[in-house]
Amino acid sequence: MISFGCDYSEGAIPEIMEYLNSTNLVSTVGYGEDEYCRRARELIKERIQAKDADVYFIAGGTQTNLITITHALRPHQGVIALTSGHISIHESGAIEARGHKILDVGAAPDGKLTVPLAEKALVNLLPPHTVQPKMVYISNPTEMGTLYTKKELAALSEFCKRHKFYLYLDGARMAMALTAEKNDVLLSDYPRYTDAFYIGGTKCGALFGEALVIVNPALKEDIGHIIKQTGALFAKGRLLGLQFEKLFEENLYEKYGAHANKMAKKLKEGFLGNGVPLAYDSETNQQFPVFSEKLMEKAQKKYVFEFWEKADEGRAVVRFVTSWATEEKNVDALLEDLKIWLKDERK
Amino acid sequence: MISFGCDYSEGAIPEIMEYLNSTNLVSTVGYGEDEYCRRARELIKERIQAKDADVYFIAGGTQTNLITITHALRPHQGVIALTSGHISIHESGAIEARGHKILDVGAAPDGKLTVPLAEKALVNLLPPHTVQPKMVYISNPTEMGTLYTKKELAALSEFCKRHKFYLYLDGARMAMALTAEKNDVLLSDYPRYTDAFYIGGTKCGALFGEALVIVNPALKEDIGHIIKQTGALFAKGRLLGLQFEKLFEENLYEKYGAHANKMAKKLKEGFLGNGVPLAYDSETNQQFPVFSEKLMEKAQKKYVFEFWEKADEGRAVVRFVTSWATEEKNVDALLEDLKIWLKDERK
Amino acid sequence: MISFGCDYSEGAIPEIMEYLNSTNLVSTVGYGEDEYCRRARELIKERIQAKDADVYFIAGGTQTNLITITHALRPHQGVIALTSGHISIHESGAIEARGHKILDVGAAPDGKLTVPLAEKALVNLLPPHTVQPKMVYISNPTEMGTLYTKKELAALSEFCKRHKFYLYLDGARMAMALTAEKNDVLLSDYPRYTDAFYIGGTKCGALFGEALVIVNPALKEDIGHIIKQTGALFAKGRLLGLQFEKLFEENLYEKYGAHANKMAKKLKEGFLGNGVPLAYDSETNQQFPVFSEKLMEKAQKKYVFEFWEKADEGRAVVRFVTSWATEEKNVDALLEDLKIWLKDERK
Amino acid sequence: MISFGCDYSEGAIPEIMEYLNSTNLVSTVGYGEDEYCRRARELIKERIQAKDADVYFIAGGTQTNLITITHALRPHQGVIALTSGHISIHESGAIEARGHKILDVGAAPDGKLTVPLAEKALVNLLPPHTVQPKMVYISNPTEMGTLYTKKELAALSEFCKRHKFYLYLDGARMAMALTAEKNDVLLSDYPRYTDAFYIGGTKCGALFGEALVIVNPALKEDIGHIIKQTGALFAKGRLLGLQFEKLFEENLYEKYGAHANKMAKKLKEGFLGNGVPLAYDSETNQQFPVFSEKLMEKAQKKYVFEFWEKADEGRAVVRFVTSWATEEKNVDALLEDLKIWLKDERK
Repeated sequence: MISFGCDYSEGAIPEIMEYLNSTNLVSTVGYGEDEYCRRARELIKERIQAKDADVYFIAGGTQTNLITITHALRPHQGVIALTSGHISIHESGAIEARGHKILDVGAAPDGKLTVPLAEKALVNLLPPHTVQPKMVYISNPTEMGTLYTKKELAALSEFCKRHKFYLYLDGARMAMALTAEKNDVLLSDYPRYTDAFYIGGTKCGALFGEALVIVNPALKEDIGHIIKQTGALFAKGRLLGLQFEKLFEENLYEKYGAHANKMAKKLKEGFLGNGVPLAYDSETNQQFPVFSEKLMEKAQKKYVFEFWEKADEGRAVVRFVTSWATEEKNVDALLEDLKIWLKDERK
Repeated sequence: MISFGCDYSEGAIPEIMEYLNSTNLVSTVGYGEDEYCRRARELIKERIQAKDADVYFIAGGTQTNLITITHALRPHQGVIALTSGHISIHESGAIEARGHKILDVGAAPDGKLTVPLAEKALVNLLPPHTVQPKMVYISNPTEMGTLYTKKELAALSEFCKRHKFYLYLDGARMAMALTAEKNDVLLSDYPRYTDAFYIGGTKCGALFGEALVIVNPALKEDIGHIIKQTGALFAKGRLLGLQFEKLFEENLYEKYGAHANKMAKKLKEGFLGNGVPLAYDSETNQQFPVFSEKLMEKAQKKYVFEFWEKADEGRAVVRFVTSWATEEKNVDALLEDLKIWLKDERK
Repeated sequence: MISFGCDYSEGAIPEIMEYLNSTNLVSTVGYGEDEYCRRARELIKERIQAKDADVYFIAGGTQTNLITITHALRPHQGVIALTSGHISIHESGAIEARGHKILDVGAAPDGKLTVPLAEKALVNLLPPHTVQPKMVYISNPTEMGTLYTKKELAALSEFCKRHKFYLYLDGARMAMALTAEKNDVLLSDYPRYTDAFYIGGTKCGALFGEALVIVNPALKEDIGHIIKQTGALFAKGRLLGLQFEKLFEENLYEKYGAHANKMAKKLKEGFLGNGVPLAYDSETNQQFPVFSEKLMEKAQKKYVFEFWEKADEGRAVVRFVTSWATEEKNVDALLEDLKIWLKDERK
Repeated sequence: MISFGCDYSEGAIPEIMEYLNSTNLVSTVGYGEDEYCRRARELIKERIQAKDADVYFIAGGTQTNLITITHALRPHQGVIALTSGHISIHESGAIEARGHKILDVGAAPDGKLTVPLAEKALVNLLPPHTVQPKMVYISNPTEMGTLYTKKELAALSEFCKRHKFYLYLDGARMAMALTAEKNDVLLSDYPRYTDAFYIGGTKCGALFGEALVIVNPALKEDIGHIIKQTGALFAKGRLLGLQFEKLFEENLYEKYGAHANKMAKKLKEGFLGNGVPLAYDSETNQQFPVFSEKLMEKAQKKYVFEFWEKADEGRAVVRFVTSWATEEKNVDALLEDLKIWLKDERK
């Protein structure tokens, strides 16, 4: 079976594995106070051009979201998000379990939260009877692989500042956002527009780990306690630090992100070229073709990919994901097979 | 000013005040273990024809909702509710603050949760990534004053049983549900269809207090701890007990509920008779006429009532509430004034 | 049976009952925005000489504690308290249920938290691994009926300021603290020494209700949301307001507190005069004589009082409580009986 | 600097590193549903002789504790633990943050919770006012390196069964417990005596990860949701699975645990042989000698170890930790230096 199932199917990029091996017996202090973490923090702060930011390394994305939101909000405050937001549906109630309502403002056809959508959370507020909106949560790329433009980010940022909301950005797949063809948002733009964001490692070539960046000084105090209390203060913090050190010292983060995008683009063009429609105009490493049930069945015998949602009678949106580990020959094989299956179908 | 603002604008029905006075110096044990509470429990269990039910007296409605839901659900479980549900919007995140997601299934034009609406919470479940639905929350009467029929309640009950969900019913204004003209749900039907429900006192003639009825044996264990832990174990529990004793020993609950409905019906007919449309076809003590801005302004100089929501350009839905304390002469006065204002408006 | 069981065995002082009756049909807005609440707030702020304080009326003491602590602390912060503190043992985990550790610094023989005891919570702190102390919780009178002196309060206040902790004082029985013979803490001292405190009503002559006073401006923002979210925003807030209005407009609070103390003093002197030792040197309305088992058995046939704790083999500490409602003839009867029982015992 | 600072100072044992490398490009499904996890589960269940147990792999120990406790307890239930328990002091309030009180029963000189100590949590219970004890938490080895005997475990187990409590055992350093000289508790004993326990990886040679074993069927349902909701459902679950597969397929777990113990024993004998007293009679890889301040200062220039607690005037308890990575030559060097420093001191 050839997998386009997700971007966390394999281990890590070879450079990281090598670094893990070569440093394995070095003895360091724990809990992220080591030299690898220190250097990784410096590299990141340099790259995002925000020397006053605080950087924390956390093992996974849901954990990072729940730490940041728990840390930032008081008990009566909620976070504005789309129905498709990862925190809204795919974290098993993590945000609510720590006490906060997600102020769901509905769906967006392209997966992007706009200011008018966010404003829906401001209607019919009746303090103290209603939850107080205090944060806006977005992902870039979105769950549909689409991208925010710099202008869109700036508009959300201005909206948040105006209402004294925090803007928090989930960058689980940020390597692919940064290296997408039409992207105009630089890594150094994130600290300008957001109060906190994270640079994803797990889905971008690391073995595991995310780098949480706290930009707003009001969000800095005591976050270490929240990290520990969530069970996320990694004993061998060096493992996280040295991965991000490697990713950011030689542009490996972008190098491998670009590869995933290149493979995805080939897939996208292949789908469209073969007349297979796409449910979302994804610019990154997740592609959402619409397959007939018959086609899906055939493809599933050889390829791993996900059913995403029902499209219409007899047709489904499916998800193909590429990554740093995707081999071009496998993309070629899939497109070749597709051509044959579609020909059969038309008979 | 004449108030149609809400059904908690005054104190209590005279019979309750009298009883509070006459028992004021009687010495009892605390925390609901007294004779008044015991007798009130017996009266209620008799009336609902559920001798095995457990009955608890709690000071307010939000408290009752949050206790029941906190008690019934495990940390990963959520409660299905309409966007208009009291727990969804008007409890300042009380349910989330204790860890549970409200699975909002959207709006219903008549404020009634139907099985097809509830089923929306079953779509796209992906355990363990998604919150597990475990309870359905409804109010009768609804927030729009409408009523569930016995058939509708039975259908929701069957749906819940099929999915092993709890059905919990908020009866903040149950006196008015029971005595509405078209109502076909008896007090004794509630234990048959629900796992837990509450009989509202605060809005139905009591000084304050609600009677929570636990029907499902699986929900009985240790609820006293949850009540205490929420700060809701009333030291002078007798105050709650004696009010419900009084309400249920001589049908006062229905007597005053019927009065509120009668006043509301007169209002409703008055609005319609004068050509004022109603936003919801309420059968109980909340009425929702659509007023022009001009009319609203005029009426606000003499009457207390609430802006509910915008209807369309220049018009608003407003809410008039009657209660056990509403005097018929005030209803007449309002309708008289209305006639005059409308005549002026048409000029 | 004659009750010395607690100070919440009866209803309310006659002046409050009268006021409830005479205002019963007055129509007001809900949620504490009415004129009675407004006036009660003014009266209290005048009496405590803190015109900038915020005052909220809440139905019960556990609720008040849990609201204040939930409101004041961030998720990683804890509250320092004695093992005998009400929040430590008698609130069924209310503080923990909202996420906060109680930093139990052990027992004090007189029930009073001293600075050296509080300092035990500062030992072995290892941030971010350890809970961050942020608040000190005390009661006056204490659970043993003893009183803090002004000097002791000032020392705790200074300790808290030095460490940037909040000092929160539970005044469930404050009427008795204020009117105890040796008391030197005025009502106007509380805002000087604490960041928040509450003036108890339930145990001091009100039907129910406590007045929470927020002194520290840092604790003012949005507490209304926390009150609502805890289910404590009373719909008929006027009921709470008018009780405190009555208690504070004519010194009734002190008048009835003094009565409870006078009855307790008579009891205390009676116990001591009859050779019955006291476990704690209570200066207020709770008295803790040490009874032999035989004596306890006899007394329980005619009087209601509580077993408090085992003293030694064959002897127990018991608790007798007086209140605004205690009749002197009942105190006399008890002391008369005691004399006879003890004489029998000595035979 | 030579480190005896902790047992998480280095990476992983060479066999695990090799396995991570050799499987790096294998593509698997995520979230622990892969073949490595499946095989690791089978190996563990075989070794513990509990084929019906459920096994979950979690990245860290605090996370594992908080998941298990959150999962097992209802909101009003607490967990009995010693003051020295990891959950009591070193998890930044993780247990309380999810709503549960730790029923601290004080200190034990050898760090072992006994039945009489646990029984202290049963005194003065006054339901529903008091937190309901429902679980006992212990670690083996304890925080002081001491070990429970089979008899002691059996007694705690019997105590728990009698009171319907869960017994949960934290095995962060279980490799060292299993291989200590006097240990008489087999891996297969744990499922007999506990309801849940975890087999530590992070401190026992793995790169990171713990294996949580759920024995009691009542604790099995839906724990996956709690894991996800805590942010602990590892995307690349295979990383955890393959480490435990490696540790348990060839007795590497015990092999490296025995090495750590052997190094610790040499240290222990060296301390005692040089007249340095030990604060606790540790049988495992943590040793707690009492150093004079002067000695501590000298040693800190060359060796990494932790200050543990003050012993008495001028002396401190310090902690030396060995691990799978400790080299014997470093132990020898330390003991050699010690001899010299002590000779100097005596002059």
